[in-house]
Amino acid sequence: MTIEAGKSAPAGGKRIRLGMVGGGQGAFIGGVHRMAARLDDHFELVAGALSSTAEKSIVSGRDLGLDPERCYGSFEEMAEKEAKRPDGIEAVSIVTPNHMHYPAAKAFLERGIHVICDKPLTSNLDDAKKLKAAAEASKALFILTHNYTGYPMVRQAREMIASGALGDLRVVQVEYAQDWLTEAVEQTGAKQAVWRTDPKQSGVGGATGDIGTHAFNLASFVTGLTLKSLAADLDSFVEGRRVDDNGHVLLRFEGGAKGMLWCSQVAPGNENALKLRVYGTKGGFEWQQENPNYLWFTPFGEQKRLVTRNGAGAGAAATRVSRIPGGHPEGYLEAFATIYSEAALAIAAFKAGKPVDPAVVYPTIDDGVKGVAFVEACVASSKKDGAWVSL
Amino acid sequence: MTIEAGKSAPAGGKRIRLGMVGGGQGAFIGGVHRMAARLDDHFELVAGALSSTAEKSIVSGRDLGLDPERCYGSFEEMAEKEAKRPDGIEAVSIVTPNHMHYPAAKAFLERGIHVICDKPLTSNLDDAKKLKAAAEASKALFILTHNYTGYPMVRQAREMIASGALGDLRVVQVEYAQDWLTEAVEQTGAKQAVWRTDPKQSGVGGATGDIGTHAFNLASFVTGLTLKSLAADLDSFVEGRRVDDNGHVLLRFEGGAKGMLWCSQVAPGNENALKLRVYGTKGGFEWQQENPNYLWFTPFGEQKRLVTRNGAGAGAAATRVSRIPGGHPEGYLEAFATIYSEAALAIAAFKAGKPVDPAVVYPTIDDGVKGVAFVEACVASSKKDGAWVSL
Amino acid sequence: MTIEAGKSAPAGGKRIRLGMVGGGQGAFIGGVHRMAARLDDHFELVAGALSSTAEKSIVSGRDLGLDPERCYGSFEEMAEKEAKRPDGIEAVSIVTPNHMHYPAAKAFLERGIHVICDKPLTSNLDDAKKLKAAAEASKALFILTHNYTGYPMVRQAREMIASGALGDLRVVQVEYAQDWLTEAVEQTGAKQAVWRTDPKQSGVGGATGDIGTHAFNLASFVTGLTLKSLAADLDSFVEGRRVDDNGHVLLRFEGGAKGMLWCSQVAPGNENALKLRVYGTKGGFEWQQENPNYLWFTPFGEQKRLVTRNGAGAGAAATRVSRIPGGHPEGYLEAFATIYSEAALAIAAFKAGKPVDPAVVYPTIDDGVKGVAFVEACVASSKKDGAWVSL
Amino acid sequence: MTIEAGKSAPAGGKRIRLGMVGGGQGAFIGGVHRMAARLDDHFELVAGALSSTAEKSIVSGRDLGLDPERCYGSFEEMAEKEAKRPDGIEAVSIVTPNHMHYPAAKAFLERGIHVICDKPLTSNLDDAKKLKAAAEASKALFILTHNYTGYPMVRQAREMIASGALGDLRVVQVEYAQDWLTEAVEQTGAKQAVWRTDPKQSGVGGATGDIGTHAFNLASFVTGLTLKSLAADLDSFVEGRRVDDNGHVLLRFEGGAKGMLWCSQVAPGNENALKLRVYGTKGGFEWQQENPNYLWFTPFGEQKRLVTRNGAGAGAAATRVSRIPGGHPEGYLEAFATIYSEAALAIAAFKAGKPVDPAVVYPTIDDGVKGVAFVEACVASSKKDGAWVSL
Repeated sequence: MTIEAGKSAPAGGKRIRLGMVGGGQGAFIGGVHRMAARLDDHFELVAGALSSTAEKSIVSGRDLGLDPERCYGSFEEMAEKEAKRPDGIEAVSIVTPNHMHYPAAKAFLERGIHVICDKPLTSNLDDAKKLKAAAEASKALFILTHNYTGYPMVRQAREMIASGALGDLRVVQVEYAQDWLTEAVEQTGAKQAVWRTDPKQSGVGGATGDIGTHAFNLASFVTGLTLKSLAADLDSFVEGRRVDDNGHVLLRFEGGAKGMLWCSQVAPGNENALKLRVYGTKGGFEWQQENPNYLWFTPFGEQKRLVTRNGAGAGAAATRVSRIPGGHPEGYLEAFATIYSEAALAIAAFKAGKPVDPAVVYPTIDDGVKGVAFVEACVASSKKDGAWVSL
Repeated sequence: MTIEAGKSAPAGGKRIRLGMVGGGQGAFIGGVHRMAARLDDHFELVAGALSSTAEKSIVSGRDLGLDPERCYGSFEEMAEKEAKRPDGIEAVSIVTPNHMHYPAAKAFLERGIHVICDKPLTSNLDDAKKLKAAAEASKALFILTHNYTGYPMVRQAREMIASGALGDLRVVQVEYAQDWLTEAVEQTGAKQAVWRTDPKQSGVGGATGDIGTHAFNLASFVTGLTLKSLAADLDSFVEGRRVDDNGHVLLRFEGGAKGMLWCSQVAPGNENALKLRVYGTKGGFEWQQENPNYLWFTPFGEQKRLVTRNGAGAGAAATRVSRIPGGHPEGYLEAFATIYSEAALAIAAFKAGKPVDPAVVYPTIDDGVKGVAFVEACVASSKKDGAWVSL
Repeated sequence: MTIEAGKSAPAGGKRIRLGMVGGGQGAFIGGVHRMAARLDDHFELVAGALSSTAEKSIVSGRDLGLDPERCYGSFEEMAEKEAKRPDGIEAVSIVTPNHMHYPAAKAFLERGIHVICDKPLTSNLDDAKKLKAAAEASKALFILTHNYTGYPMVRQAREMIASGALGDLRVVQVEYAQDWLTEAVEQTGAKQAVWRTDPKQSGVGGATGDIGTHAFNLASFVTGLTLKSLAADLDSFVEGRRVDDNGHVLLRFEGGAKGMLWCSQVAPGNENALKLRVYGTKGGFEWQQENPNYLWFTPFGEQKRLVTRNGAGAGAAATRVSRIPGGHPEGYLEAFATIYSEAALAIAAFKAGKPVDPAVVYPTIDDGVKGVAFVEACVASSKKDGAWVSL
Repeated sequence: MTIEAGKSAPAGGKRIRLGMVGGGQGAFIGGVHRMAARLDDHFELVAGALSSTAEKSIVSGRDLGLDPERCYGSFEEMAEKEAKRPDGIEAVSIVTPNHMHYPAAKAFLERGIHVICDKPLTSNLDDAKKLKAAAEASKALFILTHNYTGYPMVRQAREMIASGALGDLRVVQVEYAQDWLTEAVEQTGAKQAVWRTDPKQSGVGGATGDIGTHAFNLASFVTGLTLKSLAADLDSFVEGRRVDDNGHVLLRFEGGAKGMLWCSQVAPGNENALKLRVYGTKGGFEWQQENPNYLWFTPFGEQKRLVTRNGAGAGAAATRVSRIPGGHPEGYLEAFATIYSEAALAIAAFKAGKPVDPAVVYPTIDDGVKGVAFVEACVASSKKDGAWVSL
């Protein structure tokens, strides 16, 4: 099963009926989810609880061509009513602030509706574990949109590491740096900043939760390593900020590999500078999100080489999720769309009562629980002056 | 009117009904057009003459979820039948080899169906002029998918030059290098290579027609300059190749600016290395397609600076066609989708009987005629040992 | 006083007579010191204890055109005899393995001969402190060749930070990665590897001592920050290696800035990847040693800009130590030569009984003591499972 | 014979006695030559006609520690008097404006003094041919400082092409762009600009002579191709400028390869952007002067790889002229010094009556004649509206 230009057809012959919680006017990530769902043509958005009142939800839905009857004022209402419709939604995208992920996801899972949920999984580990239980109790699938795992060259790196191209792994360097919170923009009411720096909505982690989880997830996904313990030194550099805006974290993995993770939202000159470097006994890798079609690979003792998407030496895992030839860049939306298409392929198999093709890969609720545990461990370690905390 | 994440709603409240000529199984660019049409949700593909027989067309259409009744064996049939349907297509995408652009486009234009056509416009200048006449005689719109003009930083460069940021232009360096025709792959039956190296299907230009036109169009679009004359030295380096695979072209623009254009399909190590550099009395620009979210700008006597999509200093023209924040790369499909969304905005205005917003920009049939004239001038100059040929 | 092409004349009208300890046949860094001493023409090499026996010293000296009488079998002999000659050396370069720095430097300092010493200062902190005492007791100057501080753009960054261009500093990211010790080359007798991995010759730190000190010194030099405490997680990944070959270090500076330092000699694909990034309330910097003529500077909220050596916006501190125009790269040897030329200017002032021009900057014995303290603190912290250790 | 750190000893056991014509106070390239001569310790500057009067020459010489008696007011005087001294100069560096190269070089060649001359060879082809005759009539050697040929990775590229790594060559893209003449600085008296834009001093070519010759020489040196004919379109964009400041040139080589050459001094954002790309049937190369330790090599159908100075896969030709390990950048002065060291090795062989080691490579008077012929052909072609001119 390949995600490919022109072949990106409705999964299982028909588009999957999709609902959305959050993502109304003024939101950011909702639009990204919609474009991602659309790109490969597996989904059709048919319902939404886009806003916290029916009225606003209808206004937002109208922009998207939704039937006003299917624009709900709450996720509870949507879950209930859609579950009863013969043409009700089969899957739902949850794109609210973090603290709403748990109750919303639970409502749909309980009704057998597949959930595609933004990250981090929840705003605290307790919710995460309860959500995991809810997912396990449900027949429906749960997909977490750690979207960076959808980049073809991330898949390439993962495949090469799994095949032993780097030998035994020793060192992981991962970082995600931004600069948009260099000043106290949350105090000026900037919507994206306000909820992300409010522990009630985002959880105890600031930068750690918002982007540190991405970095941690990416490193885990590519290397296949399991984090054993960490030591963290977190800061809130901006006066009055209630969550961390910079985190320095030392990592120890099962099997002896070591790592460093830096996440920052106060590093001027960085937009979304997510970078991963991995070194083993036989070689090294470098990848960066802002120019994602390139993977630098050095077999030890040989020349550094450039592996490009759909270029020479690109393997099956990357090619499978590439849409267009090398040299024509695929970007963030394509990687995000890949998560949606993987979800569609899994849902199609589910509907057909067949096993999911092992090539289909997406972040799971377990990855989500690990992410929230990572954030809480960072905060705990930092409070203990950087003591090692086990995971 | 802005193309923006989440706001990318159906133009005029309803999706535009779209047909497609070409783009069946095994084709490449058809899939790109479909993703581009889908991304911002302005279009709905409802019919196709995807292949040269009804049977194959139906098979290809089934993959895309099309109604078999609307999968036609020829563009003529599709034009005729769709024109009669009350729910017939409003626009058509033409994604065939070059020599079919003219007859196909003409058939739809004559029936008042808007045409979105792949480049180059036609396989020869005669057809190009006739198609222009057909477009002028038609009420329908004609949009040429010179997709690189959809990149936000290309729009940024164009806007800055128009505002005088580079002063009077002096030098234009543009190039488009690939390597996929380094060997005689057309002789092994590779579909994309076969028609592109067949003068009957592609026209007299090989690399000049396939990618030289893109380079020329990009330079013209960004600088606003009009080409006055050119001198070209074309080669077919691969034995037995019937069209050029490498072109060296000197350019003279109205007003005194000079340029060089290099196009090559035999340059190992280049995937789609389209690069544009422009220099004027007050500054210089550099942009490259393979990492398209960055524009390097040097005001003379100052430091080189990096203008990023949606970053500091990005202007209205770029921001208008950006979907997501800076640092999250948009790529080739997004730029292509922008052409479609511009088309949708123009069509919506057309339907509403309103003038098109001047901010809406897309390549026109005039650009297409210029492109074909460019190719034929290159070939003519090269045959005359590189003599200057006027345009 | 400017180090500049063509003006690089003998300091004070005459070349400074220079001796060298270490650096005979088969050595590496000795040759670098000699080229560095020569480039700006301030020094003349006239004597050497290049090897551990007089015979080998003479053979090595012959290659360099030295008078055999002034090729000594030990530094003690050289110090004694040269001190007595009317034309004896005025300065000495010490380029031995680390453990010899202290006794050699002491011997010359006691005789009033200026010492230019390779880093790290000594192989242990005790020696470092004793050497500091010896330097303070001597009239002669002591210059430590932390050569990376000689790069013009490092001087530029330092000057800009001192002038407040970054505002209050928050985050320092520094790293020095190599790959040449990925395998156990010291077990195959490779000379450079053998002594560097022998604690008796190099000290308790491996990568930390060899390159971590460079990273630490560079960060300190550029930022002007004082390290308060650190927490380190060091590894010897290669079996049988007696010193660390990878170090992950968290940094806390006086005043609240935080940092991360990574040093590794087992990171395939890295030659001498020394990189420094600094972020403050008003902007951010990036610099890397392998392409050293460029400094990336982003004033918060503005475009990233490229500051080049001798380019627009390059300040006095960088220009003063540049030899040639921008765009013609200066490299490692030039930066190293700058340390020598600064030494020459200081020695010339010393000889003239005048104060040293405040523009003259070079690493001092205090920097050296701090470097050795850094290494020992890393090792101590790592032994205590990464506990914070004060400096 | 290797140019290598620490081994860079006096050629033949003694430093070669060197004189200099030009390069007094306020000059630029003279200082570069002196540093280049010094770096590897093969030369000792002992005399100079640094300026056009004895007085100024003495003042300039004093800065350099020269004996005032050997600071001459004219090259004629210097040639005559030094030739008579038993300790007279053995070689001379000529670093004047172009029009003085011929008479000065001739004066020394006639006296058997080796000449190391800056490029271009002369200010016109007539002088070039006469100088060639003078060189052939002389026993002394003639070395032209086309310094970019001294870069290790340029040597690497040349060696790889010679060994067939690129197969049969098809396309050469070479360019040298600067921006310092974007405005009419020669009218403000800037010394470097004044003589370079004065046809009497520089010759008929402006940018073509100053930097186009470098680009042409580099392309010829690396590829080994012989230029057959060219077509040029030159401009003087700055009002009142008497020589070209931008040149667009099409190239045809013996054997069928084609090329483009761009040289410009009016391209804002370019310092010394000399770039060479070569493509053949089996692979492609990219190299740029501003980051010269890297060579990008793509074997057709394989991944692009990074060949670094002294890194994996670096061959004998590059290693021979490298001084320090990979990852520690060597720059412009080192490449320039390599020309001097090659000269020294050739002179040493000459003195010993032995053949020069074939590994020793430097630009010759023939290269110089070709360079001047290139410039004159460019000007001639441009005057004939870009007609092809044979060489």
